[in-house]
Amino acid sequence: MAKIGIVGGTGYTGVELLRILCVHPEVELSVITSRSEAGERVADRFPNLRGHVDLCFTEPDARSLAECDLVFFATPNGTAMKMVPELLEAGVKVVDLAADFRLSDPAVWAKWYGMEHACPELLEEAVYGLPEVNRQKIRGARLVANPGCYPTAVQLGFLPLVEKGLVDTSRLIADAKSGVSGAGRGASVANLLAEASESFKAYGVAGHRHLPEIRQGLARAAGKEVSLTFVPHLTPMIRGILATCYATLNDTQADLQVLFEERYQGEGFVDVLPAGSLPETRSVRGANTCRIAVHRPQGGDQVVVLSVIDNLVKGAAGQAVQNMNLMLGYAEDLGIGQVALLP
Amino acid sequence: MAKIGIVGGTGYTGVELLRILCVHPEVELSVITSRSEAGERVADRFPNLRGHVDLCFTEPDARSLAECDLVFFATPNGTAMKMVPELLEAGVKVVDLAADFRLSDPAVWAKWYGMEHACPELLEEAVYGLPEVNRQKIRGARLVANPGCYPTAVQLGFLPLVEKGLVDTSRLIADAKSGVSGAGRGASVANLLAEASESFKAYGVAGHRHLPEIRQGLARAAGKEVSLTFVPHLTPMIRGILATCYATLNDTQADLQVLFEERYQGEGFVDVLPAGSLPETRSVRGANTCRIAVHRPQGGDQVVVLSVIDNLVKGAAGQAVQNMNLMLGYAEDLGIGQVALLP
Amino acid sequence: MAKIGIVGGTGYTGVELLRILCVHPEVELSVITSRSEAGERVADRFPNLRGHVDLCFTEPDARSLAECDLVFFATPNGTAMKMVPELLEAGVKVVDLAADFRLSDPAVWAKWYGMEHACPELLEEAVYGLPEVNRQKIRGARLVANPGCYPTAVQLGFLPLVEKGLVDTSRLIADAKSGVSGAGRGASVANLLAEASESFKAYGVAGHRHLPEIRQGLARAAGKEVSLTFVPHLTPMIRGILATCYATLNDTQADLQVLFEERYQGEGFVDVLPAGSLPETRSVRGANTCRIAVHRPQGGDQVVVLSVIDNLVKGAAGQAVQNMNLMLGYAEDLGIGQVALLP
Amino acid sequence: MAKIGIVGGTGYTGVELLRILCVHPEVELSVITSRSEAGERVADRFPNLRGHVDLCFTEPDARSLAECDLVFFATPNGTAMKMVPELLEAGVKVVDLAADFRLSDPAVWAKWYGMEHACPELLEEAVYGLPEVNRQKIRGARLVANPGCYPTAVQLGFLPLVEKGLVDTSRLIADAKSGVSGAGRGASVANLLAEASESFKAYGVAGHRHLPEIRQGLARAAGKEVSLTFVPHLTPMIRGILATCYATLNDTQADLQVLFEERYQGEGFVDVLPAGSLPETRSVRGANTCRIAVHRPQGGDQVVVLSVIDNLVKGAAGQAVQNMNLMLGYAEDLGIGQVALLP
Repeated sequence: MAKIGIVGGTGYTGVELLRILCVHPEVELSVITSRSEAGERVADRFPNLRGHVDLCFTEPDARSLAECDLVFFATPNGTAMKMVPELLEAGVKVVDLAADFRLSDPAVWAKWYGMEHACPELLEEAVYGLPEVNRQKIRGARLVANPGCYPTAVQLGFLPLVEKGLVDTSRLIADAKSGVSGAGRGASVANLLAEASESFKAYGVAGHRHLPEIRQGLARAAGKEVSLTFVPHLTPMIRGILATCYATLNDTQADLQVLFEERYQGEGFVDVLPAGSLPETRSVRGANTCRIAVHRPQGGDQVVVLSVIDNLVKGAAGQAVQNMNLMLGYAEDLGIGQVALLP
Repeated sequence: MAKIGIVGGTGYTGVELLRILCVHPEVELSVITSRSEAGERVADRFPNLRGHVDLCFTEPDARSLAECDLVFFATPNGTAMKMVPELLEAGVKVVDLAADFRLSDPAVWAKWYGMEHACPELLEEAVYGLPEVNRQKIRGARLVANPGCYPTAVQLGFLPLVEKGLVDTSRLIADAKSGVSGAGRGASVANLLAEASESFKAYGVAGHRHLPEIRQGLARAAGKEVSLTFVPHLTPMIRGILATCYATLNDTQADLQVLFEERYQGEGFVDVLPAGSLPETRSVRGANTCRIAVHRPQGGDQVVVLSVIDNLVKGAAGQAVQNMNLMLGYAEDLGIGQVALLP
Repeated sequence: MAKIGIVGGTGYTGVELLRILCVHPEVELSVITSRSEAGERVADRFPNLRGHVDLCFTEPDARSLAECDLVFFATPNGTAMKMVPELLEAGVKVVDLAADFRLSDPAVWAKWYGMEHACPELLEEAVYGLPEVNRQKIRGARLVANPGCYPTAVQLGFLPLVEKGLVDTSRLIADAKSGVSGAGRGASVANLLAEASESFKAYGVAGHRHLPEIRQGLARAAGKEVSLTFVPHLTPMIRGILATCYATLNDTQADLQVLFEERYQGEGFVDVLPAGSLPETRSVRGANTCRIAVHRPQGGDQVVVLSVIDNLVKGAAGQAVQNMNLMLGYAEDLGIGQVALLP
Repeated sequence: MAKIGIVGGTGYTGVELLRILCVHPEVELSVITSRSEAGERVADRFPNLRGHVDLCFTEPDARSLAECDLVFFATPNGTAMKMVPELLEAGVKVVDLAADFRLSDPAVWAKWYGMEHACPELLEEAVYGLPEVNRQKIRGARLVANPGCYPTAVQLGFLPLVEKGLVDTSRLIADAKSGVSGAGRGASVANLLAEASESFKAYGVAGHRHLPEIRQGLARAAGKEVSLTFVPHLTPMIRGILATCYATLNDTQADLQVLFEERYQGEGFVDVLPAGSLPETRSVRGANTCRIAVHRPQGGDQVVVLSVIDNLVKGAAGQAVQNMNLMLGYAEDLGIGQVALLP
């Protein structure tokens, strides 16, 4: 049994980590910290955990975290980078669910996140935790940067095309739609049910922080810079992301269905749907699965990839546990085989 | 054209007042105040008003309010009572949408609202603005206390029974369900879409502030004290209240359908549905209507009254304008004949 | 590994049985029948099951069902009673999720379900599958009638009070609210999102089929007839039931919190919340748990019990598997320990 | 007062026409037909109309329709084309809310709608009822083809760019999201609340019937063929469309904000938002308004136009009444000045 710590477990990725880890057969939850909620029982805050999690939130404390085998950071951006060096030093492995270690260029990070990076020397070592790309590196990593929710959905949608050079990477478009849990659990007017329900809107059109992350991942796959227009939208539901990915084909003879099936063959958490399918976000609600369908409308030169995930699972906590399994040498799917809740 | 002021127009009752008043043929919106948002264009905050309302929020200012014929208070509880005396003095009529003048006993008010009343001497003069009970008094009033949302739905449901002494008033039960706009527009975790959607709960079981208000109204109708259990619930939708009212009949021979139809004959904003009907809140969405159905399950001695309103219209802003029409001598239904939006 | 059959698996209780059983460690899904969908892959209909369930729907066939150890009926009312006798004859155990064996009096059944019972001789043998009442009988049963969703929530709410004779059973009120999955998966106008969303209504006020079932259960607990007013409501969400149960106390000295805690001590699927709690349906979404809070508003003689379940889990498929576990001699909680999905 | 008929008023565009027309000051509803519901009171089907509409549905009857000044068809595709010639003959003006007269090429119509056109000779005369393009022609028209919902949102979004030749029309992308009322009021499993809520999906990717309609409109504006990828999505809400329109600029020097403001100057039902705005569908709920914002992310060569409408109002019934006003010589905005319902 590995000893696990969670820093900052009061948000949605935190409760989702707890939901998954509390039934994981090979880990023991040792500590969960929250500066603001220290002393509160976790299950009082998240009543779904009554009977499953007995811990209380504690003050972040380097010593108790240092006794863990692995620590998850489910903190706001900019927090993990201040604590991670010390933990690594102490021999603790780390999965950061925030953005601190996702961008390898500290200048890009500073530009998009509005602060200097606290430990740029770790950026090279940190492994970007998309197992479908970096499985081997993750197995050996001390520090994994868990991908963002949109970046997971969009990259898995574009990767087979971009890796093979089949599309014009000078004009990629990702039109993504997310449930509101992606905005987090902070009090806000904009995300009140009375504001966000029965309505639909785009946001972050001028530039969303996931844009450089997606661009970086696709550029690595393409072996060159790519140009991407990324427009996220808020949809009146709790969980789920659908990314509709558009590109122009260089080669209209390629069998895209076969391409996708081969690329993700053996991937336990990516499900390429039969030709003509239209994935629904509910088909992955609560599950660590990305379902993908590839279309070529009217047989033209435009390809449309539809990619769905649960933003809190494959887009956050589930993928984090998938990374943990790899880092700790467990079966990759251990404890994350939950079936999606439908209806 | 009457000159109208609104104090505190940044919440849901405020925007609803604006939606109604901006197309009312006999009023002119002169001033809308908000301490926190002074200077902001109203339509920037509420984009549905673009092209309809050109005003900006201004600092509350006694002088400009004193030039109005009538002022609505859409402020938190405890605000109106500090400003109303001066306005009445200046000859301005007032409709308070908060609770400051709803309870005639200042001790009861202090107990439930947690502060001393600032002008208890006005409580006797203030008219409780339920036109179906107090129409004549409202016509002559300087100061009207607009009823709460639950009290409107529950009282209209119980009144015909209680006025005639047909039910045991020692054990009335009102099980009420409201959309989340009733909780207001303040930032809060509990009312986030991700928290309040796809879930249902009761709240205020120990004692909700609308309990003494309903009890007062029913006691007046009964001519004696009544005992009421009132349990409000939060339902995952924006607008609407359904109150399910239970009572034991003293007289199982009474024709309840006729009773209700006669009680509300000529009432333009109370619609008694045909026997056996099951009113839906959406049938009054955006409309100043209360629809009511009365049932006696299996012909027993229990009566079940179903009463639906839009909490923001007949439960707040619509009824406030209905009161304004009466106070200013207009046709009671002027400008509040909107048809409910369905679907 | 027990061999399991499901008759009629195309509705919501069917897919929920599949979600639970496909990860249950001691059962093997052998056959799932559907007259209308024979030949279709189950996972094509329910995409959440892709990768988890490989079966196709088959024509109902006595022989293949007879080879099962236990068969679940997830069929419309009136179907199971025609097939059960033959299966019992063949030594197969049966859990019926429909109403065919819930009412012990065939005359009452005929009145409420509009048809004669096909095998009234089995009604006495059939065990009402509420483990918190009939655990021992279920262990030895060949045929279990799985309770209805409302009856589960309402009975668990009232039982501690009624068993001890603490309340006036001549006027019990259960005001229940359900998500729309309770209405099933059939095409209907009334349950379209565009009709049922953003709205709230009561239904079945004149008499819902769960009324006699609840009355029967409470009468057994009370040792005498009880009188119950039961009003179900439709709430704009997918899953969840909250029952608000009202009764008048005979004895206002009783410690209701202790009463409930003692009654359900050791019950793994009933969670009595701390005094003053307000359970939310989302706290049990996807989980086989009933959470209960007991209130006495303003310390009066009225008791208000709040009881929440997931109508498809503790109110249907989860409880059915709980019954199966008991009937097959497994640990009662085997395979039904899922944590609720929140948010 | 003009006499108005509605053919096929039992769907969502029908009830929306009734909501608008019943308070329109210059029309009188004379007849509303429905073959299936003849004899039923309209207000029994649509309870929001109680007290506003007294009509019953009647059998479609050429004589009573012929006495109208103008008839709306709110029928399934392929119905109007069988009745319109006779009505025109009788001197009745017609607005068809279905697709029968939207495509000018009968071969294209036959291909996309799967049937031969019944009166191709009228296709040239029929005016495409987008007032922002064809206002003068509509004024003089006998027969107006009311645009589809998606085509309204998408064309208004692209028109300023396409008319001026500012974008590459060989690769336009419209990623559109609609509430489920767009799917109509027919009983269906896919649109049940329990299926469509808390989920998001694309549909019609292979080819939606609104694609040729949008392409025709944009080709007319461009003066040449255009190439468009159109992907509609279903979003879990009742009303509203947001179209996210993508194109590559030929000229990155153009001031797009000024372009849009000038194009729609004086248009009462198109609201160009300030630079940087993010329109929400709720800002037009129930209103006959299209709100548009134009973006150029990171100042690149990609333009993103966000266009929102209420699919049942500006996307159907409201625009139909706007057309009626033009055809009958009334003020264009008469009776369609409703303020959107927010929240």
